[in-house]
Amino acid sequence: MDALKKVIVSKGSSLNGGIIKVDSFLNHRLDSGLIFQMGEAFAARFLQEQPDIILTVEASGIALALATAHALGDIPVVYAKKSHASNQNSDMAKETIYSFTHQQECVIRVDLHYIPKGSKVLIIDDFLANGEAVRGLMGIIKQANAKLVGIGIAIEKGFQQGGKMLRAQGLPLLSLAVIDELKDGHIRFRDTEGEI
Amino acid sequence: MDALKKVIVSKGSSLNGGIIKVDSFLNHRLDSGLIFQMGEAFAARFLQEQPDIILTVEASGIALALATAHALGDIPVVYAKKSHASNQNSDMAKETIYSFTHQQECVIRVDLHYIPKGSKVLIIDDFLANGEAVRGLMGIIKQANAKLVGIGIAIEKGFQQGGKMLRAQGLPLLSLAVIDELKDGHIRFRDTEGEI
Repeated sequence: MDALKKVIVSKGSSLNGGIIKVDSFLNHRLDSGLIFQMGEAFAARFLQEQPDIILTVEASGIALALATAHALGDIPVVYAKKSHASNQNSDMAKETIYSFTHQQECVIRVDLHYIPKGSKVLIIDDFLANGEAVRGLMGIIKQANAKLVGIGIAIEKGFQQGGKMLRAQGLPLLSLAVIDELKDGHIRFRDTEGEI
Repeated sequence: MDALKKVIVSKGSSLNGGIIKVDSFLNHRLDSGLIFQMGEAFAARFLQEQPDIILTVEASGIALALATAHALGDIPVVYAKKSHASNQNSDMAKETIYSFTHQQECVIRVDLHYIPKGSKVLIIDDFLANGEAVRGLMGIIKQANAKLVGIGIAIEKGFQQGGKMLRAQGLPLLSLAVIDELKDGHIRFRDTEGEI
């Protein structure tokens, strides 16, 4: 998506060690107009799958998920809660994922009452790097006996393995911007014309 | 707001010790249609103040803040990040607040680059109880030399002190539902007809 790529180039200013800074538009300050444009792009791609529920992870996935839900006629959003403790009570579904950014394990939890058996679930998230968050969300969908109908990602780090792994499984993945290289402050995007 | 009060009565089923359960529509599963209706109600009330920025706290304030921003023409949202550690680096503005729900102190942080001096800031949050989160956000607005133009809350616990304290200071506060009593599974709402 050109609007997103332009903002990444103009504002994703700190490009050290494969980290791209998106605080100014995606996960601290939200560029609301851009968020809703991204929601529309996800909706256009996955409308035909008729998702019942959007599933994401707090906190940075919530805005994109809500914007996508809005573009799909205000379907419900469920966001997984994160915690660093593994001893949760309650009957929530849990998956343990590893955050490379924070260099630690993290437990994501979803109350399965909110993902009825058989529902068609669309995963939305801000970043795809090694695919740990998506793997955890897919595990929760499996525990719910629901069906994954698509995965929408704002920014994929194409030089990490998550996207490759999901595509190899034949999963319907749309990344609005795929960064193949970050080097000396220069960003090389993958040509995804036609996909979006 | 009648639509919100109805959902609180029909779904906020676990009413123990002053806790109302909103997981099914407000802070784990999101009822997207209701979230956007609430955003429109906040926008209608505060449009005349011409806010430049919406300020909230992760994670449960994000959806309401984005919906309100959308109804105000896609103005930007800034969400404060929470952490339990007090030794943050960087030049972020910090405030320490006390969570009665979690019985612990928590630090909220905002990068002041995203709240330009003089901006008109509208605070949006899901709950108002003792007013700690709002007090912290007001402290951040003060550190930014910006101007608070309004406070929009989904559910105010009228039997706690936050709302009373803010009104006593003459601050423009809109709570879409004010619960004055939770007793034996019965909810008594304050009559706020005309405010909304």
